[in-house]
Amino acid sequence: MKHARHKRALGIDFGGTSVKVAIVHSTGEIEQEDSFPTEGLDGVKGWLDEVERMAASFGYDRREMRRSLAGIGVGVPGFVDFHRGYIYNLTNVPGWTAVELATILRRRFDVPALVDNDCNVMAIGECHYGAGQGIRDAVFLTLGTGVGGGIWLDGHLYRGAYSMAGEIGHVSIDLNGVRTATGRGGLEQYVGNRQIVRRAVLALRGGRTSMLRTMTGGDFSELTPRHMAEAARKGDALSREVFDYMADCLATALASTTYLLQPQVFIIGGGVAASGSVLFTPLRAHLRERLSPYFAKRIKVRAAKLGNHAGVVGAASLVLH
Amino acid sequence: MKHARHKRALGIDFGGTSVKVAIVHSTGEIEQEDSFPTEGLDGVKGWLDEVERMAASFGYDRREMRRSLAGIGVGVPGFVDFHRGYIYNLTNVPGWTAVELATILRRRFDVPALVDNDCNVMAIGECHYGAGQGIRDAVFLTLGTGVGGGIWLDGHLYRGAYSMAGEIGHVSIDLNGVRTATGRGGLEQYVGNRQIVRRAVLALRGGRTSMLRTMTGGDFSELTPRHMAEAARKGDALSREVFDYMADCLATALASTTYLLQPQVFIIGGGVAASGSVLFTPLRAHLRERLSPYFAKRIKVRAAKLGNHAGVVGAASLVLH
Repeated sequence: MKHARHKRALGIDFGGTSVKVAIVHSTGEIEQEDSFPTEGLDGVKGWLDEVERMAASFGYDRREMRRSLAGIGVGVPGFVDFHRGYIYNLTNVPGWTAVELATILRRRFDVPALVDNDCNVMAIGECHYGAGQGIRDAVFLTLGTGVGGGIWLDGHLYRGAYSMAGEIGHVSIDLNGVRTATGRGGLEQYVGNRQIVRRAVLALRGGRTSMLRTMTGGDFSELTPRHMAEAARKGDALSREVFDYMADCLATALASTTYLLQPQVFIIGGGVAASGSVLFTPLRAHLRERLSPYFAKRIKVRAAKLGNHAGVVGAASLVLH
Repeated sequence: MKHARHKRALGIDFGGTSVKVAIVHSTGEIEQEDSFPTEGLDGVKGWLDEVERMAASFGYDRREMRRSLAGIGVGVPGFVDFHRGYIYNLTNVPGWTAVELATILRRRFDVPALVDNDCNVMAIGECHYGAGQGIRDAVFLTLGTGVGGGIWLDGHLYRGAYSMAGEIGHVSIDLNGVRTATGRGGLEQYVGNRQIVRRAVLALRGGRTSMLRTMTGGDFSELTPRHMAEAARKGDALSREVFDYMADCLATALASTTYLLQPQVFIIGGGVAASGSVLFTPLRAHLRERLSPYFAKRIKVRAAKLGNHAGVVGAASLVLH
């Protein structure tokens, strides 16, 4: 590739709240980083202006970008046709329907540009520079309000026939489960942030004893998975039960994925994954229970390593590799 | 590859009841075919003797095999390490634990030899010569007593990190479902031959009106999915309900697989798939219901084409391609 001689790229992590922009070195190091808020932008044009302004503030005006960057990689929160660099639409960002973003970026900055789904981009970041380094077959998950995924097979991101693969959050764990626009019993309906909190709040309202009561000062609207992880670590039975249930739901989807794809490892990131062992210990145990020994002994579950940086690093990787 | 100049291979479909052996041309045509019973063989040695005898009866003694065959491909009913050509064990065939079959075949016949799981081999056959011709990403399923699968990605069979991928029969459709050695709620516990029949028999014993009563002469131990497919085609409400339920269970696993892998097509073979539209019509409808429109409109479900020949043709494909 023409641009492979360049060792740096602009990585953009386009989130629902903020847009992170970084200069990433091919070693995975973030050399410069900044962000701007997603809200209040004047559509695609306004977004491009902000990106240009931020790159210039890093010392990369258009000429310098052409001269010394491998290109621009972007991870976006929605459906993308990777090969065309086309955004179908972004669920939580108005004004981004049917946008040929890669073409627009190439025209404006005259550098290579690639656009992918945010979870794919994080998976790529983790597999090049994080918990998946040296791994040939991995499945990446991000646990937060929703559950996203990215599938890394034979050392490459697998995007499926139409660029939409990896939607592990919609894998059904119960054929008679919660009905949504994406089917029934989708994993994300059981292990999303809101679902975890709701499960605890229901028990608390039912009179259950728990240190979550004092931690929230009795105002359950303030309860977060972070409180629950802290309480679980301190031995709170209710919090532990909720994490155990969540881990078992997650294990159901991971067991199914293991039977289908037999990756070497699951890499789990996102806010809820920061709960640490209160999640990972029951998760590994339930996964073992739900797999035959042939599969159980060969599968690993690891926490993601790049944290909030996975997005910009992975986005830059799109054009660096 | 050294052997690519040869246009024919010996394909072996090693089943629990019989071993099918065929000379397969690289066009997919079966030029000669025969079989011997699995039972009563003197272990691996006896099996090899039978294979040699049968090949000789086709005009391929050892010398002729070396001279004019691309090699020997074998599909076996159990866990295999494809890269080593090693059989861990065969569930229903005693005496086949820890067998280095590919090496043994190579030593004995001095031709290339590859060994794979039977469902993988059928998937390969269908994707080279059957319902998956020209398809880049497909998932193959075989519905019978059990449910097996094979995953074809980027124009190749995907075997996973340790050669055991594609076990779609163990994908869970209910986290609280039937408990087995392979987990809970595995698809195969809901759509296997026995489960389908049992569901109908329970309703019949409960007094349900159905033409299955007269078809079996009241002896429900004689009931097969074939009777039920025939009755369903004639409008029998009970049979239709059972197929509808089975189709919905299957759709749950296919929807999950679609969200994960987004193949272009599912190719469905095996005895139950021969039921035709009484299965495929509700299956397509339920799959649509269980997918978001983005995914639903892009996925196809097709019947397999090669029938009983998928095994030998696919096995031969291992060494022909």
